[in-house]
Amino acid sequence: MPDLSSYAELDLDRSARRGYPEAVYCAGKTPEQVAGIAAAVAGRPDVITLFTRASPAHAAAVLEVLPTAFHDDDAGLLAWPPEVPAPTGGPVLVLAAGTSDLPYAREALLTARYLGRDTSLIVDVGVAGLHRVLGHLEVLRRAHAIVVAAGMDGALPSVVAGLVSAPVVALPTSVGYGAAFEGLAALLAMLNACAPGVAVVNIDNGYGAGHLAAQIAAPR
Amino acid sequence: MPDLSSYAELDLDRSARRGYPEAVYCAGKTPEQVAGIAAAVAGRPDVITLFTRASPAHAAAVLEVLPTAFHDDDAGLLAWPPEVPAPTGGPVLVLAAGTSDLPYAREALLTARYLGRDTSLIVDVGVAGLHRVLGHLEVLRRAHAIVVAAGMDGALPSVVAGLVSAPVVALPTSVGYGAAFEGLAALLAMLNACAPGVAVVNIDNGYGAGHLAAQIAAPR
Amino acid sequence: MPDLSSYAELDLDRSARRGYPEAVYCAGKTPEQVAGIAAAVAGRPDVITLFTRASPAHAAAVLEVLPTAFHDDDAGLLAWPPEVPAPTGGPVLVLAAGTSDLPYAREALLTARYLGRDTSLIVDVGVAGLHRVLGHLEVLRRAHAIVVAAGMDGALPSVVAGLVSAPVVALPTSVGYGAAFEGLAALLAMLNACAPGVAVVNIDNGYGAGHLAAQIAAPR
Amino acid sequence: MPDLSSYAELDLDRSARRGYPEAVYCAGKTPEQVAGIAAAVAGRPDVITLFTRASPAHAAAVLEVLPTAFHDDDAGLLAWPPEVPAPTGGPVLVLAAGTSDLPYAREALLTARYLGRDTSLIVDVGVAGLHRVLGHLEVLRRAHAIVVAAGMDGALPSVVAGLVSAPVVALPTSVGYGAAFEGLAALLAMLNACAPGVAVVNIDNGYGAGHLAAQIAAPR
Amino acid sequence: MPDLSSYAELDLDRSARRGYPEAVYCAGKTPEQVAGIAAAVAGRPDVITLFTRASPAHAAAVLEVLPTAFHDDDAGLLAWPPEVPAPTGGPVLVLAAGTSDLPYAREALLTARYLGRDTSLIVDVGVAGLHRVLGHLEVLRRAHAIVVAAGMDGALPSVVAGLVSAPVVALPTSVGYGAAFEGLAALLAMLNACAPGVAVVNIDNGYGAGHLAAQIAAPR
Amino acid sequence: MPDLSSYAELDLDRSARRGYPEAVYCAGKTPEQVAGIAAAVAGRPDVITLFTRASPAHAAAVLEVLPTAFHDDDAGLLAWPPEVPAPTGGPVLVLAAGTSDLPYAREALLTARYLGRDTSLIVDVGVAGLHRVLGHLEVLRRAHAIVVAAGMDGALPSVVAGLVSAPVVALPTSVGYGAAFEGLAALLAMLNACAPGVAVVNIDNGYGAGHLAAQIAAPR
Amino acid sequence: MPDLSSYAELDLDRSARRGYPEAVYCAGKTPEQVAGIAAAVAGRPDVITLFTRASPAHAAAVLEVLPTAFHDDDAGLLAWPPEVPAPTGGPVLVLAAGTSDLPYAREALLTARYLGRDTSLIVDVGVAGLHRVLGHLEVLRRAHAIVVAAGMDGALPSVVAGLVSAPVVALPTSVGYGAAFEGLAALLAMLNACAPGVAVVNIDNGYGAGHLAAQIAAPR
Amino acid sequence: MPDLSSYAELDLDRSARRGYPEAVYCAGKTPEQVAGIAAAVAGRPDVITLFTRASPAHAAAVLEVLPTAFHDDDAGLLAWPPEVPAPTGGPVLVLAAGTSDLPYAREALLTARYLGRDTSLIVDVGVAGLHRVLGHLEVLRRAHAIVVAAGMDGALPSVVAGLVSAPVVALPTSVGYGAAFEGLAALLAMLNACAPGVAVVNIDNGYGAGHLAAQIAAPR
Repeated sequence: MPDLSSYAELDLDRSARRGYPEAVYCAGKTPEQVAGIAAAVAGRPDVITLFTRASPAHAAAVLEVLPTAFHDDDAGLLAWPPEVPAPTGGPVLVLAAGTSDLPYAREALLTARYLGRDTSLIVDVGVAGLHRVLGHLEVLRRAHAIVVAAGMDGALPSVVAGLVSAPVVALPTSVGYGAAFEGLAALLAMLNACAPGVAVVNIDNGYGAGHLAAQIAAPR
Repeated sequence: MPDLSSYAELDLDRSARRGYPEAVYCAGKTPEQVAGIAAAVAGRPDVITLFTRASPAHAAAVLEVLPTAFHDDDAGLLAWPPEVPAPTGGPVLVLAAGTSDLPYAREALLTARYLGRDTSLIVDVGVAGLHRVLGHLEVLRRAHAIVVAAGMDGALPSVVAGLVSAPVVALPTSVGYGAAFEGLAALLAMLNACAPGVAVVNIDNGYGAGHLAAQIAAPR
Repeated sequence: MPDLSSYAELDLDRSARRGYPEAVYCAGKTPEQVAGIAAAVAGRPDVITLFTRASPAHAAAVLEVLPTAFHDDDAGLLAWPPEVPAPTGGPVLVLAAGTSDLPYAREALLTARYLGRDTSLIVDVGVAGLHRVLGHLEVLRRAHAIVVAAGMDGALPSVVAGLVSAPVVALPTSVGYGAAFEGLAALLAMLNACAPGVAVVNIDNGYGAGHLAAQIAAPR
Repeated sequence: MPDLSSYAELDLDRSARRGYPEAVYCAGKTPEQVAGIAAAVAGRPDVITLFTRASPAHAAAVLEVLPTAFHDDDAGLLAWPPEVPAPTGGPVLVLAAGTSDLPYAREALLTARYLGRDTSLIVDVGVAGLHRVLGHLEVLRRAHAIVVAAGMDGALPSVVAGLVSAPVVALPTSVGYGAAFEGLAALLAMLNACAPGVAVVNIDNGYGAGHLAAQIAAPR
Repeated sequence: MPDLSSYAELDLDRSARRGYPEAVYCAGKTPEQVAGIAAAVAGRPDVITLFTRASPAHAAAVLEVLPTAFHDDDAGLLAWPPEVPAPTGGPVLVLAAGTSDLPYAREALLTARYLGRDTSLIVDVGVAGLHRVLGHLEVLRRAHAIVVAAGMDGALPSVVAGLVSAPVVALPTSVGYGAAFEGLAALLAMLNACAPGVAVVNIDNGYGAGHLAAQIAAPR
Repeated sequence: MPDLSSYAELDLDRSARRGYPEAVYCAGKTPEQVAGIAAAVAGRPDVITLFTRASPAHAAAVLEVLPTAFHDDDAGLLAWPPEVPAPTGGPVLVLAAGTSDLPYAREALLTARYLGRDTSLIVDVGVAGLHRVLGHLEVLRRAHAIVVAAGMDGALPSVVAGLVSAPVVALPTSVGYGAAFEGLAALLAMLNACAPGVAVVNIDNGYGAGHLAAQIAAPR
Repeated sequence: MPDLSSYAELDLDRSARRGYPEAVYCAGKTPEQVAGIAAAVAGRPDVITLFTRASPAHAAAVLEVLPTAFHDDDAGLLAWPPEVPAPTGGPVLVLAAGTSDLPYAREALLTARYLGRDTSLIVDVGVAGLHRVLGHLEVLRRAHAIVVAAGMDGALPSVVAGLVSAPVVALPTSVGYGAAFEGLAALLAMLNACAPGVAVVNIDNGYGAGHLAAQIAAPR
Repeated sequence: MPDLSSYAELDLDRSARRGYPEAVYCAGKTPEQVAGIAAAVAGRPDVITLFTRASPAHAAAVLEVLPTAFHDDDAGLLAWPPEVPAPTGGPVLVLAAGTSDLPYAREALLTARYLGRDTSLIVDVGVAGLHRVLGHLEVLRRAHAIVVAAGMDGALPSVVAGLVSAPVVALPTSVGYGAAFEGLAALLAMLNACAPGVAVVNIDNGYGAGHLAAQIAAPR
């Protein structure tokens, strides 16, 4: 196996510097490279390391080195050490407009949870049936940050932002087909949300959405 | 003035053939050409002629030839003869998400009205304040066709279609800026509406929206 | 199997509320999730449930739970209960410009049929041979709504809309290659149809086209 | 006035070399530069020079130097010397789908005429009224090359190519609005024409369309 | 002047409901319509009303009705009543990458200020000279929310987010030309920021950026 | 096997009507459908039928029904009956800018050949080594139509059109990567060729290019 | 006039640090802001300051403060102090494909000249007449860096790069119309140049092209 | 195996003519074709031949003919003869923003090395942790040309160009997802770099980046 320094330079002190640990983006790395990084962080259980966008092969490589790591297959996420930190700050709520948005919603949820927030999830509350989202108004208004994952028309963040005072993190997903253009339609809709208070992240970027929500709801 | 046949071939029998008269699309025509067409239809008061996308110069040219024609400046629309036909078929409702969508909403309204439908208009019912649209539920459910004009995130048609059983004609507008991309964001959102029953027309195409609504709500 | 409420919230009363039942969009769901939904609707034979965009794995999962369900492999559609309701309202006609547009045309046809309309299909009537479509003029003019599925240049809806008084539901398909850009060329052409009366839906969205046509031709 | 060689290098022998003279593209040149080129070609009446995309200021500059030059204001075209050459080769037919396409159709017509072809023009034969184009079938089938100028849905070239054996030069125009995207919709439709035999040129490029048609119908 | 209800439906209770007042988006409204809205809010000095994207004509119309309103010409923003509320919550910092980004940065700054935050501004700290931004590290780390306005390559938010623990609101601007595509390049860069913690808003949407920052830094 | 009329309506008289036979576009059809069409044309050896965009499965299905059919695997083309007609009209020359453009160039070549033209091919004459194309000047100038297949920068048609008087059929290919955008770069370059006389067809559309070249070089 | 520090932070030591002075990008700045910067650099005649993308109003503002500054109106460029430095390094050659590309070519030329290179310019050598560029082969091969400005098909850099061993700086311009998409076609073509050795800069970015060429040809 | 001249025309004298040898672009060629070319160059060990974008099948085909060829699997590159030439000119430095950019960075590195430059590589120096790149300032300033490979936000070239006086070759990569649009975001960011001195090449074009860097740093 090649030397770690020939393909990566870890930033294990980011947690001390920025307050949040670095994550390992697995896509585009070989399983061998990911395993090498896993071996490097094995000696630093004081820092939580997230492995994101991990394919089954990546996950297997990590788990061979760090067998106790937490692994969520749908979300493509691993966390080590696997213990969830005790929650601080305010509650983070994650909404998934439809069942197909769940993998991205879960990636956001788990990220916020491992960064130290109290998290919860509500599924299948798309705007085609407004009574669904309106039925959760109380929970919505309690959250300090709300992640809203939606594909297709990306309309849910506008609706939610109009109902609450906390910031909404809009997470466009690639759910849909044809003129959804792999999430572009949802992305554009969210950038043009007619309600202010909508913070947009990249398509399918559950990690980024969860990270941002954790920062917004952080203890101050 | 050049001969009419050198630049246009009118289809005055379309009304008999298709059930709806031809409209004169003014954009890209010279005022002289539009005046020539106005002169040609002057002899056919049995057919309602609509002049769409008429600039002030186009309108002046039409009004010089047909001084009694109806003219709506905001909508860029003229109708001759100016008498509104007695309504037949079911009611057509037009919604404008915001004040800035009004010109296109009015073009739709007037088109449906001159094609023979009973029409009404509701303004400023964007999804950022759901109570606005929910307050009109009864009227919404009475309509046989609903035109929904919206720019920016284009979310309103999804919401409305989820509340009614009649078809919704989604009219994306160029209202917005930046990543609204002149109505593209709204157009894509509407094409990906998560509620079925949404019929999309071209950006800012109030004429097309009103025509389609009039056909849907036509007497059978 | 996880609890249904952890990934979906069914809207079985939509039929009563909106007049049309909810459909289950299978793409992006796991076969297990789809099976869970099938189990939930098994107790509600009073509501027709459509499963759309079903891969073979999705279909197998549904059929294991609902063995009598109707299944059309090409269209990726299942319906349960399998009995076609007695037709009401006006006739819905579906045109497929070419053989390759058939899967989407059939999805539209079956949707309209299960929503209660009388439906028929005409295939391979592209504008490259006008005599084909002109040979069906009488049937075209009898329909209360016409779905036109076309890829490539997307020219057929313009031509058909110019021949009839009923609304045309334009269904762009991803048929074609190169500058067809997965259906974008057909979509743009249809949005710019030079004949009014064209209602555009998303690329390959046979379900949406059939639903809209069923609404337009609904009994009033 | 600066020396001609500091801003242009004319190719007056192209006619001998390629069989067709060079044209002067005025857009982006200053009127002074265009005047300088006009002065240079003044001494070569044996070669026909076309000035294309000439604004009124460009035209005035040319006409001051070459007062007898032919000028078509709508088409933005000048020709010098103004005499039309005696036609050779086969007939070139130009169709304009709508009145608004006329400026581009005329640019094509005049180009083909000054390059030595027999030319004729038919206006306002869009596909929304098929009887219009079908009424010209005989003339269509006599042409050796047919230029079809159309904006919006760009459907006419497909229809025409399906009716004749000669090549069709498809000239997309920027006529339309919204999702016409300045001619992109028509361009894509024409590139995807479902009838073979369609040669596409740039949006609004009447000069190129006329030049190509003249080459196709050239004497051999 | 037409009745207010014919073109707008104000939401003056939004402040009570959502915690933040509604803003009046002037673009696309006539000055008369804006004046009508100004007259309506004149009776509610308990709610701060912002008028955004106000052209000089819009501003004049507002100032005629509300002569004491605050007006920032560059930012196209008016506020009434003009008194800045006493700051609560944490500090909001606004960075402008270049001088040309100032109008949008000021719109963000003023919005956050009128929504009740303590605000400050740093100008001309683009990444081409890293020493500029690094020289402000202490101020950066004190802010509870940082708005970063940047056009062209949109690189500054990535750099800033890597230096601090507070959320960064990335405000892409249309500054630049050619392949900047009116802010698209900056928008895409920000959506793909390699540092997490970046909340993206629409191109040139200073109001949205300031609103979001005010929410993030709100007292809890 | 379903009845032919349920999925296709052949146009075997197109050859008599338009002068060129219909081709069968295989992509998107099932092998069974293609076989059904092959069976239908088996009884009409008087008309040459081309099967285009045929995958190996399509080809096998055709060859089972028409075992003597000509088949070119690279070009995805079959012809039946396999006999090449005696050439008429002028020569058609096909250029492939690079080796990777060969499949599309061959599709064009074979189409023109089966439509009755004398054809020849020159390979690997990209503009990066101008001496290559300049070395073929004599052959280039003899052709009545020249197909130029090129991907990447799509520069070759401009260069060739500047050297000859015959029309150039520009065939953009999807050869390249990154900002070639599957042939878009080449397509746009060809549409903007600075030399007139360039007829553009769809990306990778060798059939269309060959058909158009055959029409241009047809006997008159 | 507001204080300079409220809108800009000059980097007058960049020349010492990077070897090249900072330029002042005028677009998006007010003339007052540009004048303020001019006043600030007036005290530093040891550093050459370039003002780029200067409108006539910007230029007037600079010239009022720095009356001896060099000003090229077409290129929108000012330089102060106006003395051209004595050339060092290798020769830089600038090619303009057509006359309309001249403003951008001149901006590149003047930038390289004021950064200390020996520069020369050749105009109107587009690929439609290859003999033009081939006639300059000797000069081309002497240059240490060649800037090639071209719009439309952007084919010239490929051709030039295939003829020389020095790097070619490809400067796409917005010259053209329709599918030139404001320089996008040329940009894509240049990024896909089939000859290696092509360094692409932004559309119309003459300053960037000249700067890069000056760096490449710098003395070492 | 077909004759070489039927699919390729090698340019083995390019090295003498341009100073750099031709490379064989394998994508789109069959392994048989690549093998045929390998056989042809086998007789010319005086010229270094690079095979780029070689899949494993291409590589196997080359190695069967030229068993001693150098092969880098990640970079998809082969070189024959395998001996690295003695370095001349100035040093070329290659930066990879992240581990996932390594394959493209290595392709650049190896190309520059086989074209005769002294090369070195630094990995994982993205702008999210500025201390990484700032820690290499001395090496950065020693290089005569710097290749910077980056995906996602493509911000690194701007930062690096602001720190050095040598040209930066910006190599956008397809690393990222969603709105990275396969490298488009990075490409646009690099074209709009706010620091001058950035030479952009095609997405993932490591060969082109290395070639350009080798030319810039060539001995003079």
